[in-house]
Amino acid sequence: MPEKDPAPGKAHTPLPPVVEALVATRDAITAVTRGNGQRRLLPSRDVLASAMSQLRAALFPGFFSDWDLSDESLHFYVGATLDRVLHELEGQIARALCMYAGHQNVDCDRCSARASDVTGRFLARLPEVRRVLATDVEAGYQGDPAARDQAEVIFSYPGLRAITDHRLAHELYLLDVPLIPRIICEQAHSITGVDIHPGATIGEYFFIDHGTGVVIGETTVIGERVRLYQGVTLGAKSFPLDADGNPIKGVPRHPVVEDDVIVYSGATILGRVTIGAGAVIGGNVWLTRSVPPRAKITQSNVRQELFEAGGGI
Amino acid sequence: MPEKDPAPGKAHTPLPPVVEALVATRDAITAVTRGNGQRRLLPSRDVLASAMSQLRAALFPGFFSDWDLSDESLHFYVGATLDRVLHELEGQIARALCMYAGHQNVDCDRCSARASDVTGRFLARLPEVRRVLATDVEAGYQGDPAARDQAEVIFSYPGLRAITDHRLAHELYLLDVPLIPRIICEQAHSITGVDIHPGATIGEYFFIDHGTGVVIGETTVIGERVRLYQGVTLGAKSFPLDADGNPIKGVPRHPVVEDDVIVYSGATILGRVTIGAGAVIGGNVWLTRSVPPRAKITQSNVRQELFEAGGGI
Amino acid sequence: MPEKDPAPGKAHTPLPPVVEALVATRDAITAVTRGNGQRRLLPSRDVLASAMSQLRAALFPGFFSDWDLSDESLHFYVGATLDRVLHELEGQIARALCMYAGHQNVDCDRCSARASDVTGRFLARLPEVRRVLATDVEAGYQGDPAARDQAEVIFSYPGLRAITDHRLAHELYLLDVPLIPRIICEQAHSITGVDIHPGATIGEYFFIDHGTGVVIGETTVIGERVRLYQGVTLGAKSFPLDADGNPIKGVPRHPVVEDDVIVYSGATILGRVTIGAGAVIGGNVWLTRSVPPRAKITQSNVRQELFEAGGGI
Repeated sequence: MPEKDPAPGKAHTPLPPVVEALVATRDAITAVTRGNGQRRLLPSRDVLASAMSQLRAALFPGFFSDWDLSDESLHFYVGATLDRVLHELEGQIARALCMYAGHQNVDCDRCSARASDVTGRFLARLPEVRRVLATDVEAGYQGDPAARDQAEVIFSYPGLRAITDHRLAHELYLLDVPLIPRIICEQAHSITGVDIHPGATIGEYFFIDHGTGVVIGETTVIGERVRLYQGVTLGAKSFPLDADGNPIKGVPRHPVVEDDVIVYSGATILGRVTIGAGAVIGGNVWLTRSVPPRAKITQSNVRQELFEAGGGI
Repeated sequence: MPEKDPAPGKAHTPLPPVVEALVATRDAITAVTRGNGQRRLLPSRDVLASAMSQLRAALFPGFFSDWDLSDESLHFYVGATLDRVLHELEGQIARALCMYAGHQNVDCDRCSARASDVTGRFLARLPEVRRVLATDVEAGYQGDPAARDQAEVIFSYPGLRAITDHRLAHELYLLDVPLIPRIICEQAHSITGVDIHPGATIGEYFFIDHGTGVVIGETTVIGERVRLYQGVTLGAKSFPLDADGNPIKGVPRHPVVEDDVIVYSGATILGRVTIGAGAVIGGNVWLTRSVPPRAKITQSNVRQELFEAGGGI
Repeated sequence: MPEKDPAPGKAHTPLPPVVEALVATRDAITAVTRGNGQRRLLPSRDVLASAMSQLRAALFPGFFSDWDLSDESLHFYVGATLDRVLHELEGQIARALCMYAGHQNVDCDRCSARASDVTGRFLARLPEVRRVLATDVEAGYQGDPAARDQAEVIFSYPGLRAITDHRLAHELYLLDVPLIPRIICEQAHSITGVDIHPGATIGEYFFIDHGTGVVIGETTVIGERVRLYQGVTLGAKSFPLDADGNPIKGVPRHPVVEDDVIVYSGATILGRVTIGAGAVIGGNVWLTRSVPPRAKITQSNVRQELFEAGGGI
């Protein structure tokens, strides 16, 4: 990076040459069409954030909406909200599909038809997503003595916000929608400090307490009734490169966490290892091997083993 | 979680059956009335966020306001801001009280009267809160060589934002306001990465530097002139269950941190232990026992002890 | 902190005495003029957030803008955006300069002239900042097997957002603009969990994955092609106090990280130590000494050394 310019004060730098220098470059960080005169329409992070906000309002009616509900009006509000949000989402999906199809025209028939199809399939999954989210709310209430009731979990637990957005984004991921699931999960990461890749597979009754610093990688598989605390990483130990030195995408490289596992704050579990059902992983543990069901791993177990075996990442 | 649907493309899923499936469920995650036709009015996270923003503008006049102050106008702006914010807050408190009272009508006399009383008591506490916050600003300036002056601490230190919102939420917590203190603290957590439960008791001249990942539990008691760094957890080691297997709420289960303690980044202190006055807890230490005044605990001390004693969570 | 008031319910506390108590105090947390009747205009965090958002839209055209671009229109949009944002930024810089110059009148000629000069120099640096950011995007794509392409990095990687805002704030820091670089970096910290002080010097092809909890101190120097994971601290071990007991500002006290270093999640490196080129620092390592080029430091190396040497912070 440059050192401070020692030259004496001078008048304003003229704007036009700087604009020329910025727009003269055509590279990966300029998201415009290249030569055919048509516009390239990219997904909008703002539209996606608004759509997710409305989806949460429809899935948890009364909690995140700007309307006050009665039994009678619930039906109308949920219907109107879903209708609007699906329209917005379909447009964003079409843009993402076109972007990756290399098309320059968002109205291309194939992308629009596929966006419509995908949106319909997504809609059909919402009742199941809602059913699973109710198990997550229950897990939050059961898992934290500071939680007074389920409403407090819904209103104020970052772990629930993160898993809600994850379960919705994961449905789009399974439908092969590019880019958008990642943007959704990253917006949840920004709000909650919980970074779950949309590819991760997560079972029912999932609870993350506090949440800041949690990382769950793309190929992670998590069973039912699993509880994580802040700062837990379920990550990759290393990843293979192809002949050109680029990382090979999509290889299973993150942990498999079986049912009823608890992982305490700051623990790091790396690689395609299996944490057996009912195991308890203590805080700040650094773990790169599988452990059997019902194992209790603490920092001192790990240390003793590392000292005997020589250790290493 | 479901596998990807292998069925061929199909037209849009019709909306009405999905809406029916979503609204047919009446459970904890649907916050509507059940049968008496009256609306259930829940607190609004957006209104609370706006109210807190205005309260900060009144407590730190000139820093977070959209008006530019003079000595003459200060009085008017602080008065007008407080008047508006207290009206909003009283309405939110009434909603929270009704919600937990099981009432269906927000205008019920008892909740309204109690909300008015609580809001008045909260207002009366603001000068004292302001006095204590001035000590926190001073602690931030004294505790970080990168801080040029107090204004930089107020404008840009996440630790100050977190403790400001905490001290305000804690007053509401002491007044037995349900839910709202938790929502306020969780909004501060989202912005700052610092997760302080509104029940925690925190003395004057408190400073958290950087802050991301800090967790301070409900029954924590912190003395004066305490300094924490990023990633510090003051948490519970375990919690007792009642006869039905539900966690018992409200039991003291978090650390007591006496005056003049410093806890470095990533340290985890769990359980109702006492960290004696003037103690220094080193980075990444995992501690589940009390330490005497002026103790200096580092990772290697802890490890040696753990190896001798057998360790464990 | 006060105990709960046991007094019986009472009517609303009157507002005027509380307002009087709040405004009667004239201290560091009241940012108003003191006696000369002129207004003190402070920088606005909201205006700065908006200006940075527009700057990102101009540097990554099409990604963060609310317009859809064609080759033809790109030139106009970038020019109009820069023109507007520089006008806003110049006003904010003038306010910050006046604030630290102790002036009471934002129109004072010297501050305005200096703000204009600084803004021009900042503008002239934008093409170079843009060139370096393109290397950061490439590093993100190469460094994460979950990244499909560069667009995903730009749209959704918090590390790229953090380094973008840092590189812009660092230019203002080099131009001796007070306060504003710190506010910019803290806003990026709030969004991303990555806390980079604007004074840190960072080379090309820089990549932070996941990012939550990363702290990079004011006097840190980072070479080229360095990769950090979540929770890494490059911090100060201690800092000297002056004769009055206040921390001495500006002393080099953070690490020097040479080219091609990788630091895994949760590692803490403290003090003015040098991490040699090509070194790999394992996860959760606590390191307060220099390591040679190409060293591979893991938790067990560090532990063995600490046990032999007696350890300590």
